[in-house]
Amino acid sequence: MLETNLKRAGNQTVVFANPPVILSSYTVVGPMEGQGPLGATFDSVWPDTLHNEKSWERAESKLLQEALEGAIARSGVTRDQIDFMLAGDLLNQIISSNYAARQIALPFIGLYGACSTMALGLILGSMLLDGGFARHVLVGVSSHHDTAERQYRMPTEHGNQRSMSAQWTVTGAGSVLLGRSGNGPRIASATVGRILDYGETDANNMGAAMAPAVSDTILNHLHDLNRTPADYDLIASGDLGTVGLGLAHEVLKKSGIPVGQEFTDCGVMIYDPSQDVHAGGSGCGCSAVVFAGSILQRVRAGEFKRVLLVGSGALHSPTSSQQGESIPSIGHAVEIVG
Amino acid sequence: MLETNLKRAGNQTVVFANPPVILSSYTVVGPMEGQGPLGATFDSVWPDTLHNEKSWERAESKLLQEALEGAIARSGVTRDQIDFMLAGDLLNQIISSNYAARQIALPFIGLYGACSTMALGLILGSMLLDGGFARHVLVGVSSHHDTAERQYRMPTEHGNQRSMSAQWTVTGAGSVLLGRSGNGPRIASATVGRILDYGETDANNMGAAMAPAVSDTILNHLHDLNRTPADYDLIASGDLGTVGLGLAHEVLKKSGIPVGQEFTDCGVMIYDPSQDVHAGGSGCGCSAVVFAGSILQRVRAGEFKRVLLVGSGALHSPTSSQQGESIPSIGHAVEIVG
Repeated sequence: MLETNLKRAGNQTVVFANPPVILSSYTVVGPMEGQGPLGATFDSVWPDTLHNEKSWERAESKLLQEALEGAIARSGVTRDQIDFMLAGDLLNQIISSNYAARQIALPFIGLYGACSTMALGLILGSMLLDGGFARHVLVGVSSHHDTAERQYRMPTEHGNQRSMSAQWTVTGAGSVLLGRSGNGPRIASATVGRILDYGETDANNMGAAMAPAVSDTILNHLHDLNRTPADYDLIASGDLGTVGLGLAHEVLKKSGIPVGQEFTDCGVMIYDPSQDVHAGGSGCGCSAVVFAGSILQRVRAGEFKRVLLVGSGALHSPTSSQQGESIPSIGHAVEIVG
Repeated sequence: MLETNLKRAGNQTVVFANPPVILSSYTVVGPMEGQGPLGATFDSVWPDTLHNEKSWERAESKLLQEALEGAIARSGVTRDQIDFMLAGDLLNQIISSNYAARQIALPFIGLYGACSTMALGLILGSMLLDGGFARHVLVGVSSHHDTAERQYRMPTEHGNQRSMSAQWTVTGAGSVLLGRSGNGPRIASATVGRILDYGETDANNMGAAMAPAVSDTILNHLHDLNRTPADYDLIASGDLGTVGLGLAHEVLKKSGIPVGQEFTDCGVMIYDPSQDVHAGGSGCGCSAVVFAGSILQRVRAGEFKRVLLVGSGALHSPTSSQQGESIPSIGHAVEIVG
């Protein structure tokens, strides 16, 4: 039986035989993210959100391109040794990624996982490496506050009032270069999520929509590997925001999972409450820059030995919302060890 | 060196050590596709494009769900033996796939590759299987004429005149269930494409935009495996249409590749000229239903021993077009053997 050489633990989790290495990472953010509590952890902070581009959409693609180029340059790996680029973003037809991929000119795989895209890219990239299909894989993800607002909600010029449960889409792009060997944090295992939808229809409360899916993936991950939250120095969802994080804590505790302060959220970490973003940050770029910046720096410094990044995606669209649909949500978990 | 166990041939092509098996396939199409030359090859033909749903978007998701359920049922594989569902479509935030994935309830990976998505899903699914990460993988892709028209161009109620180079978005969904062993056509190798963009800005001439990327991927695939077009019984792009197919023939011949009548296009195959679709079919569903229907049937019947499906994606959006951008295009090739 071929089934005997499967790299699986439990039902939903994959364990890598040769854990892929994060050889380098690079982050580029907008001014507001630069002024936040993680400001010093980012590699580049743009002075404004257009950065000499003619449109926010072009700016977002440039943001991603800079992050991808930064990760390549820092890795010491030459472009001809990179076999795939995996990327995604929030824009219709993931144009930020497509136009960045045009410039990077590597074999390209486009993903859509909303805010879970960095986690999804890390998981697929690791499978391509551990499966023997690539020498190096480049992963990159972006979001931009103004492109997302005008596509999903209102043009920012409108100045409409935001609800307190709303999250603020991060202007930022993060990229990592993964390899099969070398020094750096390693990707040990991954749990690809199922879609859960408990009927939440409020697009201004995506944290509540995503909390069940994130909790479900954490539960399955821990169950599959026979672990508890205490086995991790950090469990970071990305991005539930304050409302969703509170709900996920509650769901996990009610499910008998003793989760404590080690479970936090990239959307909670990226802004200071004084920045008036209400429930925290969101957008593909949020978990991408928090993970590729602060979290990886703390893993490399030895502060974190084992981290679980749980990317969370609200997989609706303005069209589905207008047609009365609720928000299908997903969580993808990836385990990083120092 | 870990590099020694890489499954690669040449620069861009992966060769599977244990070629994954296509255990089953299922196709669902709209009435117009059912009336076309391949009508008898589809598993289900809807009598109309709404099929009792309230919106075309809901109908598209239902179309995909039926195709996915059909492939599962026909395979004899139980749902708990399927480890991943890979899907994508043309709609913003791939909602057809997300809502279908909510119903199917398998660990879900969302893809965006425009009309190349079926090929991309076959490639990634094969990597997950051959890499040892899954027992079975479900792949599904959809498009719908009316959802695509109103999102990308004009509402169909508008009745505006279409240009002669325009392609007709197929209403249809195709699904395949892949496994690690068993009987059926096998996926032998794959070539993930790079984005090429020669400056075409006319969204009503996507075949011209995509022809260079498709030609580039075919060239690389043949070069990496040291083959000629004569080694294939069929090379089917999906979907260049008549205009793009003619251009791709020209590009390949000028590049010294002696391509003949074995190179055709799913968008050319699916409609009869009398159906007045101008340059042929397009949309994720086009190559999905032609491949999962007619092509696989002819492979199973022994008529085709070796087929190359080259999914082609026009990776623009209405927003990028409005901002004056050209159409970045990609081709992904997957080799199927009988």
